[in-house]
Amino acid sequence: MSPSIGTLGEAALVARLRHRAGPPPDFVTLGIGDDAAVIAPERGRHTVATTDSLVEDVHFRRAWTPLHAVGHKALAVNLSDLAAMGASPRASLLSLALPRDLPIADFDALIDGFVSLAEAAGAPLVGGNLTRSPAPIVIDVTALGTVRPRRLLRREGTQDGDELYVTGALGAAAAGLALLAAGVDRASLDEAAAACVARYEQPDARVRCGQIVGRTGAASAAIDVSDGLADAARRLADAGGVGVVVDADALPVHAGVRDWTGRSGQDAIALALSGGEDYELAFAVRPRQRSKFLAALRRCAGLPVTRVGGFTAERGYWLDRAGARVPLPSGFAHF
Amino acid sequence: MSPSIGTLGEAALVARLRHRAGPPPDFVTLGIGDDAAVIAPERGRHTVATTDSLVEDVHFRRAWTPLHAVGHKALAVNLSDLAAMGASPRASLLSLALPRDLPIADFDALIDGFVSLAEAAGAPLVGGNLTRSPAPIVIDVTALGTVRPRRLLRREGTQDGDELYVTGALGAAAAGLALLAAGVDRASLDEAAAACVARYEQPDARVRCGQIVGRTGAASAAIDVSDGLADAARRLADAGGVGVVVDADALPVHAGVRDWTGRSGQDAIALALSGGEDYELAFAVRPRQRSKFLAALRRCAGLPVTRVGGFTAERGYWLDRAGARVPLPSGFAHF
Repeated sequence: MSPSIGTLGEAALVARLRHRAGPPPDFVTLGIGDDAAVIAPERGRHTVATTDSLVEDVHFRRAWTPLHAVGHKALAVNLSDLAAMGASPRASLLSLALPRDLPIADFDALIDGFVSLAEAAGAPLVGGNLTRSPAPIVIDVTALGTVRPRRLLRREGTQDGDELYVTGALGAAAAGLALLAAGVDRASLDEAAAACVARYEQPDARVRCGQIVGRTGAASAAIDVSDGLADAARRLADAGGVGVVVDADALPVHAGVRDWTGRSGQDAIALALSGGEDYELAFAVRPRQRSKFLAALRRCAGLPVTRVGGFTAERGYWLDRAGARVPLPSGFAHF
Repeated sequence: MSPSIGTLGEAALVARLRHRAGPPPDFVTLGIGDDAAVIAPERGRHTVATTDSLVEDVHFRRAWTPLHAVGHKALAVNLSDLAAMGASPRASLLSLALPRDLPIADFDALIDGFVSLAEAAGAPLVGGNLTRSPAPIVIDVTALGTVRPRRLLRREGTQDGDELYVTGALGAAAAGLALLAAGVDRASLDEAAAACVARYEQPDARVRCGQIVGRTGAASAAIDVSDGLADAARRLADAGGVGVVVDADALPVHAGVRDWTGRSGQDAIALALSGGEDYELAFAVRPRQRSKFLAALRRCAGLPVTRVGGFTAERGYWLDRAGARVPLPSGFAHF
């Protein structure tokens, strides 16, 4: 058993974190170790800022998921918000509330998971905060990015007649979580099921895809799919003052989802619509921008994109399924 | 009894927060309601970013402190970090992990306390996150500011022979916390004791003072006094590779501290050195910069500044007290 972080003290933990983060790149005027971080600007670009947290026993369980993956995910969910704006990552801040009895090895794993994604994504860890928590681990991350204002993707802007697109496949993370909750043996998982667990634990943010679409100006509006496609579709519709129809038969349901729901008796479409944590991107696209949009997506390193519905002048949220129009379910609810 | 936030749901809470925050100023390209906030740059300035959190039952107790004050303080402790860099506040992000049974009235009070300081300090709330907490309230704040790189105050830079200065009075917040912990009746407090409780619950950040000193270039180094002057002095010394001697007799101990320690039998000097949460600023100043530094401080709206020691070539941390030199105590420890 590794000794706990309570035996080290705050200064030693910060030094440990700083060592693991390594030296920052040149545009970081001041990194970890001062009262605040200082970052040089990029000419012609606005600052994009987002914050999102993972709370133990709400967003993850230590018994199910190694802390290396939790550290990765805490940053990835923030990068996904930058992706939805068409922004380029620039830096990250990490604020940790930790129980005193957390093993040092777990602390190191969490930091390493965070830092390796931060480096890969170009969002170096430049600062943060460490404090004690009376119970759960709380990981709060702020991601900073930059974007040229004309290339900014917004949630607002969807119009009547726009088409709804989504990247990647849906429901994988929800199926991965269900597999972990059912206590499956990781070693026994087939490829599709293992991909679901990986998507739940260590999502990729679609940063490059958001940037490319932002650059082309082909999308009317964009959002990241964090609480299910149904939720994302509703939000795009609401922000544009229009209605939305999702086509159940068109949904790119992940192969692992069909396996899991086949075994569990759940509805694959419901999971794909409302399961949450996909961290894909959804776009509203005017029909005359369609070919430009699809051409842009072809430059997104093999990431598929699927047309899954459209927006209507009449306000409301619907699902077309097997020829019938029914109310669109809600997304994942946090409260 | 006010109904709980669990009866409202996330969308209603975000709408409530957005309404209370009001419309953002013009430089906020995109505020609350999109995947991320977007802020226009300021010519010639770098971005300054800091994050700090308040955790229930670690940093505050609901039984002692109204949530309006907690909301204020959550932002103030971050503004204090910007102050220590000489930065101007620009925007703030608020990430809340909240128990489902939190009364809506408490949620509103927390937001109002945050937002009123955000407006007054020029750090409008531009985004954030709401999630469920299994137990404690966790309030994570990111403050963004800007600074001209030549006017930046750093922790590093103290030299042998520099003098140590601190703003304001010390120990008030620690005495205020002790009074609350002792269960005193707020209505019965005299002026000095009430000032201690106010300093603990709703600290002012010394933002203007940091900016003015940064502009003059008169300080070798600066830090905010969040974990006691002893801790701040040690950190300034360490960052400069020098030693420090603090003069106990020179410390500007708050009047309410002497009253409290007189009654409780505690040592006023120890409380002033290690009590924490002062949120004053400490500066290292070369003797030849002293008159420029003191002239700058006179423009800080009546905020006193006191010379409380000096830095030495020999490394170490000492306290001169009643003619004897003893080891300097440590600051407040978070782990």
